[in-house]
Amino acid sequence: MGEFAFIRSVQEGCHFSPKKLIKGIGDDCAVIGPYEDRVFLISTDLLVENIHFVLGKIQPEHLGEKAAAVNLSDIAAMGGTPLHLFMSLAIPPATEVVFLHSLYRGIKTMCRRHGTNILGGDTSASPNGLTINITVMGEAQGDEVLFRQGAKEGDKIYVTGTLGDSAAGLKLIKGELSAPAPLAFALKKAHNRPVPQLEAGRVIAQSRWASAMIDVSDGLLSDLGHICEASGVGALLFKSKVPLSENLKAMARAGNFDPYELALSGGEDYQLLVTVPGENTAQFEKIFQGGSPCRVYCLGEITGGKGIQIVRHDGVRETMKVSGFNHFKEA
Amino acid sequence: MGEFAFIRSVQEGCHFSPKKLIKGIGDDCAVIGPYEDRVFLISTDLLVENIHFVLGKIQPEHLGEKAAAVNLSDIAAMGGTPLHLFMSLAIPPATEVVFLHSLYRGIKTMCRRHGTNILGGDTSASPNGLTINITVMGEAQGDEVLFRQGAKEGDKIYVTGTLGDSAAGLKLIKGELSAPAPLAFALKKAHNRPVPQLEAGRVIAQSRWASAMIDVSDGLLSDLGHICEASGVGALLFKSKVPLSENLKAMARAGNFDPYELALSGGEDYQLLVTVPGENTAQFEKIFQGGSPCRVYCLGEITGGKGIQIVRHDGVRETMKVSGFNHFKEA
Repeated sequence: MGEFAFIRSVQEGCHFSPKKLIKGIGDDCAVIGPYEDRVFLISTDLLVENIHFVLGKIQPEHLGEKAAAVNLSDIAAMGGTPLHLFMSLAIPPATEVVFLHSLYRGIKTMCRRHGTNILGGDTSASPNGLTINITVMGEAQGDEVLFRQGAKEGDKIYVTGTLGDSAAGLKLIKGELSAPAPLAFALKKAHNRPVPQLEAGRVIAQSRWASAMIDVSDGLLSDLGHICEASGVGALLFKSKVPLSENLKAMARAGNFDPYELALSGGEDYQLLVTVPGENTAQFEKIFQGGSPCRVYCLGEITGGKGIQIVRHDGVRETMKVSGFNHFKEA
Repeated sequence: MGEFAFIRSVQEGCHFSPKKLIKGIGDDCAVIGPYEDRVFLISTDLLVENIHFVLGKIQPEHLGEKAAAVNLSDIAAMGGTPLHLFMSLAIPPATEVVFLHSLYRGIKTMCRRHGTNILGGDTSASPNGLTINITVMGEAQGDEVLFRQGAKEGDKIYVTGTLGDSAAGLKLIKGELSAPAPLAFALKKAHNRPVPQLEAGRVIAQSRWASAMIDVSDGLLSDLGHICEASGVGALLFKSKVPLSENLKAMARAGNFDPYELALSGGEDYQLLVTVPGENTAQFEKIFQGGSPCRVYCLGEITGGKGIQIVRHDGVRETMKVSGFNHFKEA
């Protein structure tokens, strides 16, 4: 049983008090409300040593920033504004206090940047590795929240930035690839210091032109697959339109590998993947003219079918097996 | 640096957006609001294998119940009603799906009992032990919430049930003590299946007779110490008034040990510790006449000094070094 199948199997029968409950398990955040004119968004994320990070491969301050960023990204994916953050730490015996202070400094840096309070947490000893759990609470106007559900046949698919840099950075960090120093620095930074797309998420939600949204955490194919599954649709992606950074292209040329592999399945880019009905695309694209708050790239469209097809550079269509990071080994 | 000193050292400079923020780090829950006529209570708790529990010593379903219960207890300690629960799991490779389903069943049992929705979570592989993190969100009337802060000199100190059973149960589970089967069963159950005192907490908060409240998770002395520190007061406890169960007394007689040691410092009883101004005690006690929703025991009073003194059975006063479970080794 895979991770997603397990999550599906336990999410039945979890609502014992449906009052003011808009969305439970199955999106980037749970959504509750309305309270006054707003809804609250809540998400929780676990970071486990030697699964999500390797000490010594990331500075403790950057680890703190990243732990906060990946949670804030879930708020961005609903179009919300983060309000409060809660952090639990299971700490191995040999951990130095200076390490913990650096970790907190990183979390505070990210929270300060986004006006997010740190309101609580828990600390525990850990007999083995470091484990970090962060829960973040945000808010949004009730009628602006974007779910994974909502994409319709004919909607165009956009992404708010280039993809694959984080996965390339991870390969550099692991020593599976190498690159000249400035290139390696930029790509490792994309992996270690992701930027939650909060402003883009809010602008997209407030514009009301989009139909569904998710952040690219598991990988483009996997996260687009989540939108398709939640919306009951399929998707067609044009490989040539998947945006790549100049850094990733340069590294792929030097290392002689296919950068689209990383862009499609790599994960941890934390860009936003958005679907926009055809009649809204002109106004949607207009918001981002001049590149503020980000550029958007149209890379395909939603279809009435099931599954994701990719149009290769030679025009041939390939049906993709959706993949991404799966925490459970398949039985 | 101990756990509490570390928490104090990082809780500075955590509020980057003080709007609608009532209480940050430093109580059983963070408190935000008001929204309409209510406030929200949020708490997060980490349970780490071989620190908080030992697999094989607790049934997976009971572990799930307990993981939820200790979080719900934090909502009880503020006088609130739990609404939503979020759970993260870091899962070792050898874990069987049947174990995970039992764990979830336990969490759902506890949530169903208290009308609490399970709205999300995260699952991850774990290279080592099982780690569970639960975040719970509750609500209360804004003017009814009880904090650790608020106790005043002359207030009486009450507890909502007997203390020490959980610590005795833990000693039995660890094999450090032994007892006849029915006694052992009851005491282990107190440890493995604690009951969050939600109804008592709500009744106490709604009565408005109390001045401060906390749940007994770290141990009576430690948690009373938290009230004293937050309120800037001291406390006087009468050892003879600390309520003990018949089971614990029987076990102490048979094992020839001092049951008050466990009742004072044992922890994990999850009863509520409440302070009540002298002029309110008659009305306060009246609520609990007939033993519903629980009995309350007066075991001492708040003093103007610093620290906790205990009046022994022979009348001698002892100044206590506050102790309880500290997750960090002192340097």
